Amino acid sequence: VTARLDPVGQRSETVRRANLSAIVRELHARGPLSRSELVARTGLTRSAIRGLIRELTAAGIANEKRAIPLGTPGRPSPLVRLEPERASVLALEIAVDSLAAALVGLGGNVLASIRVDRPRDHVSLDAIVGDLVALAERVLVPSRRRSAVIGIGVAVAGIVRRSDGFVWMAPNLGWRVTPLGQVLDEALGLAVPLEIANDADLGALAEVRRGAARGIDNVIYLSGEVGVGGGIIVDGRALAGVAGYGGEIGHMPVNPDGRACGCGSTGCWETEIGATALLRRAGRPIDGGRSEVDALLAAATDGDPVSLAALEETGRWLGLGLAGLVNILNPGLVVFGGLFEHLYPFIEEPVRAMLDERALRPPRDLVGLTPSGLGDDAPLLGAAELAFEPLLADPARWLRPRDTLAERATA
Amino acid sequence: VTARLDPVGQRSETVRRANLSAIVRELHARGPLSRSELVARTGLTRSAIRGLIRELTAAGIANEKRAIPLGTPGRPSPLVRLEPERASVLALEIAVDSLAAALVGLGGNVLASIRVDRPRDHVSLDAIVGDLVALAERVLVPSRRRSAVIGIGVAVAGIVRRSDGFVWMAPNLGWRVTPLGQVLDEALGLAVPLEIANDADLGALAEVRRGAARGIDNVIYLSGEVGVGGGIIVDGRALAGVAGYGGEIGHMPVNPDGRACGCGSTGCWETEIGATALLRRAGRPIDGGRSEVDALLAAATDGDPVSLAALEETGRWLGLGLAGLVNILNPGLVVFGGLFEHLYPFIEEPVRAMLDERALRPPRDLVGLTPSGLGDDAPLLGAAELAFEPLLADPARWLRPRDTLAERATA
Repeated sequence: VTARLDPVGQRSETVRRANLSAIVRELHARGPLSRSELVARTGLTRSAIRGLIRELTAAGIANEKRAIPLGTPGRPSPLVRLEPERASVLALEIAVDSLAAALVGLGGNVLASIRVDRPRDHVSLDAIVGDLVALAERVLVPSRRRSAVIGIGVAVAGIVRRSDGFVWMAPNLGWRVTPLGQVLDEALGLAVPLEIANDADLGALAEVRRGAARGIDNVIYLSGEVGVGGGIIVDGRALAGVAGYGGEIGHMPVNPDGRACGCGSTGCWETEIGATALLRRAGRPIDGGRSEVDALLAAATDGDPVSLAALEETGRWLGLGLAGLVNILNPGLVVFGGLFEHLYPFIEEPVRAMLDERALRPPRDLVGLTPSGLGDDAPLLGAAELAFEPLLADPARWLRPRDTLAERATA
Repeated sequence: VTARLDPVGQRSETVRRANLSAIVRELHARGPLSRSELVARTGLTRSAIRGLIRELTAAGIANEKRAIPLGTPGRPSPLVRLEPERASVLALEIAVDSLAAALVGLGGNVLASIRVDRPRDHVSLDAIVGDLVALAERVLVPSRRRSAVIGIGVAVAGIVRRSDGFVWMAPNLGWRVTPLGQVLDEALGLAVPLEIANDADLGALAEVRRGAARGIDNVIYLSGEVGVGGGIIVDGRALAGVAGYGGEIGHMPVNPDGRACGCGSTGCWETEIGATALLRRAGRPIDGGRSEVDALLAAATDGDPVSLAALEETGRWLGLGLAGLVNILNPGLVVFGGLFEHLYPFIEEPVRAMLDERALRPPRDLVGLTPSGLGDDAPLLGAAELAFEPLLADPARWLRPRDTLAERATA
């Protein structure tokens, strides 16, 4: 089933590039592998693997060393691994309650990471960008790290146009129509590509590559705090839609008689399952944020009936909406991230009960539920994966003398 | 973003196969093309195209002839075209109100087609299969056609497990848990592969390849009568999910206080937008089928206020649910098929108004609406495309002496 207009034929040099990409992707996602494992995973011949590894090691992107013997008989096979310090990316996140930065090396090693509470009075674009640049400077020490950065990925709790990093709406940041990409790019001054995406989309990417959904091809990642977002993986690829806006599952209408939503509509799923609804049901201040939710969870753990009832009702609405998504998408796994990871022990039972009641039996029987494997860092780690994508897609472009690798990023 | 476990490397013989597939797919979907057009569309070199065409013509799958001059100066370029009688497929459809069969040649030419009302008392599996076999016999005349059949595709108004053609539920046929694939395969006795899929999924496939959604990569095809189904195309590929159950958009919960649905849940979208809801709102017999709907549409055309109000309310529920799907999927186009094609002139305005009111602005601005380009035959034509898929995916397997082509189908 294809309606693509891209060229679909394959020339020999595009095949070499695709095969280099296949090897680098495997090493990046799975860590060090032997030649035999690379043969098995890529389907390439041993001699093709040999030539491609030679190219990668000559460029300093990978090395091949014998693993340390573990006392078992026989010599261990040499393992091919990527060089984490050779190419790295800067990952940034603008969450509702915090800001974060990380420097991540090829292969996924987190070389440095920092997260700070977001000052509630720093709401302007310039203030947030200033805070982010300060965080970025801290993970870029020592200075040799700066020259290895090949790209920047940014996760933001908002609706983002992927092509230029234009934030169309971030109601929980108080932004509308903000040229975040352009302003951040100039303020950082790193002169490498910068890509911005929705935080839940990036959380999904990270969970599939390194978290709870590794190896699963059809996944819903549910996330959020006050606002609710989602990242959808279909057949191993992010569901983006025509302009990258796909996955806004928080704005599925579930209650025609419901409350007004921040998006301008009424009765969206997020009005029933977000932090505001939970706190309202428990009679707590609805803008209390994560600390108020934590207090509610502590009370529920102590058996407080009001808190337990609020969680139960939230869980039922969660299950109702998920039933629809399960029917539409037939996923293999739903990952509960953000707020929902914290609620998970309390809402799992009503969610499962509502799925039993409301979802079609065949897709219901095939879906698993799990809390996030990466916790609150999932979007940040996904931002790193986003920034690595150009290198992973076409490593051949990066097979140049060592000192110009970061310069390639801007080519 | 990939989590696939399939081998991802490319050997030279898989490249040749992929390139043959690219050429046959282009010719099948677009009709006759010159070598220059094939070069432009596939990105392959002219010499590669020449060799691949030679293989296809030697096997009798394609021919290359100069087009008839149209009086314009210069000789027209020769056109490569597929041989429609060389390989064909049998397409069958089990709809709620009708049964259909078609013989479709390579390239999409409909060689013969027939549709009959489904006798309301023929509800058992054996009765329907008997009727279908009789229809199939009629499109397989003359007898030389039988030997060219390489596959069978079946569209059914139900929830189907793709791997073995097991119909899990077809409430509007009165079936539950029916081994349709196996029974039909034995009754037809054609000894070629048979594949069954949901009618809306196949309608989407046909609309993308030959209908209103041609060339569009992200599409929702909405269809149904009493039951409501959908076919979703994401990045040019059918959204199947883990077992082919994806696309059941009729069972998205939109009204927690709504009516009981045939699936066992409550307030599913189909309870608000299906034929039953429309007829109920107009005070007509709810099980009156298409003829009662046609009477309602005739009354609305004459300005009957009750009929117009029923259509208006149905349109508003249509727009509400679509707003959710637009937010989740960010599609470029929604195609209204089945019942909704017939309602389209009456519901377009309330649907657009509700989308404006309820969908997020960025995806709202990017989605088009259109009635089906293929009408009630969309699922039947999609069934033919399903049956062609093995040949399109790997034509190399079929490049054998002419007399064994149909035998290849069972290899």
